[in-house]
Amino acid sequence: MDFTDETAAAAVVDSFADTPDPRLRELLQKLVPHLHAFVRETRLTVEEWEKAIAFLTAVGQNCDDTRQEFVLLSDVLGISMLTETINGQQEGTESTVLGPFHMTESPRRANGDSIDLLGGKTPCVVTGRVTDAAGTPLPGATVDVWQCTEEGFYDVQQPEVQPPGNGRGFFTTDADGAFRFRTVVPSHYPIPTDGPVGRMLLATKRHPYRPAHIHLIAEAPGHRTLTTHIFVAGGPYLDSDAVFAVKRSLVVDFAEITEPERAAEHGVTAPFRMAEIDLVLERE
Amino acid sequence: MDFTDETAAAAVVDSFADTPDPRLRELLQKLVPHLHAFVRETRLTVEEWEKAIAFLTAVGQNCDDTRQEFVLLSDVLGISMLTETINGQQEGTESTVLGPFHMTESPRRANGDSIDLLGGKTPCVVTGRVTDAAGTPLPGATVDVWQCTEEGFYDVQQPEVQPPGNGRGFFTTDADGAFRFRTVVPSHYPIPTDGPVGRMLLATKRHPYRPAHIHLIAEAPGHRTLTTHIFVAGGPYLDSDAVFAVKRSLVVDFAEITEPERAAEHGVTAPFRMAEIDLVLERE
Repeated sequence: MDFTDETAAAAVVDSFADTPDPRLRELLQKLVPHLHAFVRETRLTVEEWEKAIAFLTAVGQNCDDTRQEFVLLSDVLGISMLTETINGQQEGTESTVLGPFHMTESPRRANGDSIDLLGGKTPCVVTGRVTDAAGTPLPGATVDVWQCTEEGFYDVQQPEVQPPGNGRGFFTTDADGAFRFRTVVPSHYPIPTDGPVGRMLLATKRHPYRPAHIHLIAEAPGHRTLTTHIFVAGGPYLDSDAVFAVKRSLVVDFAEITEPERAAEHGVTAPFRMAEIDLVLERE
Repeated sequence: MDFTDETAAAAVVDSFADTPDPRLRELLQKLVPHLHAFVRETRLTVEEWEKAIAFLTAVGQNCDDTRQEFVLLSDVLGISMLTETINGQQEGTESTVLGPFHMTESPRRANGDSIDLLGGKTPCVVTGRVTDAAGTPLPGATVDVWQCTEEGFYDVQQPEVQPPGNGRGFFTTDADGAFRFRTVVPSHYPIPTDGPVGRMLLATKRHPYRPAHIHLIAEAPGHRTLTTHIFVAGGPYLDSDAVFAVKRSLVVDFAEITEPERAAEHGVTAPFRMAEIDLVLERE
């Protein structure tokens, strides 16, 4: 009956023995020993426990319809990325985190359309193909794209400046599995720092920046859905992403192209930037 | 640069390397490997991660001035009790959890006063002494006491039924280190089950009950403050306290006494119940 620091974890694990759902039972029975080991190893004080309770409470209370501070906490502790990595494809394009800005539906757009509704400084053309692992093109696949502006803001962060759907598009691949769109090169940007997670970054001298990237979700019938980014090669923070989401294979050259003829091919003016990406989906 | 499930924890630990406060650095660098190990060992799915985020968010949003759902979560996972146990006295009376009902100041009362302002069914007399580890009485020590009614409710839970301060008293020991008060025998009771923690107990087939107990905080200059309970011997749930707070040494006999002379001694009517407790404080 006595609860000592040695017997505590076993007593709590045992309390979950009758959980009907075997997976819930497994999750709780594996979580408890880690939490208890953490408290024992650090000899957590009551004052530190109180601070932890206050921090977690503040994180929960900073969540609303447009903000998810617990996702942010999971992100900066690498938990989101670890979960994504464990569940990612075994072959094909690597996955990375969904992030907090996939909150509105992207407008359906035709291949070649621009997702830059504001007319940014430097045009950018993104072309790509969706294939299976053998390289066979997947026509009719969908590619959901979202990104921030050249100033580093998503449409939902600037409702008075950006029209809804700016930086977003929902494309369908053509007979060759190809998709293409015009945009601007996204900027690096900080994750929100005005909440408890931001205070944690400040207290630990961690910067809040994410390297520049475009989000993509590619889906095709009979294949696993791919949630990933492409990162802009050469930009800052590629080796210290605040949410640990960079994978080398996802860093893509956004080449500067000066030839007017090539610009005309893509319906933009020179100089422009251009990125080419292949999205390889695993069979389900 | 690449984030794999094997290298993930090390990358996150390393991100905290420049934390100025060494204790905060230690806590975060020891927490991260446990959280990552949990995700790796269980192969947590993205859907399970989403459910965990939603659960933690709901826990935070169920906290307000009179309710602390994160403390409750910590309680039912045995974390509160483990923290209390690690930080408890090495000798002397064992400590246990503070609990969520020490939210108002207990009224100062004289030895012999009743803390039962409603006139419960069966009177109860509690007498005790505060001593140091060598058995020397500690006069002028304070003993803060709070408990629920015979029906299992604290004053703050029933503001329309119970006057503020019912079941609470702040006593000072006499020249012999003694204190005494009249009360009723508290009932076992359920922790709040109408929030996310209650839903977790339901999903895991755990009951929400705490065995009957009286809370005490004893303080004396030059000694460590003792936060503890006394549990009513023979009651239900002593071997399955929902918050794991029972220690054998804290279970006390609340003897039934029928002699009218003994009742008269204590200013109550027979039959009554009586508990005697010694609170032993460690030197600071």
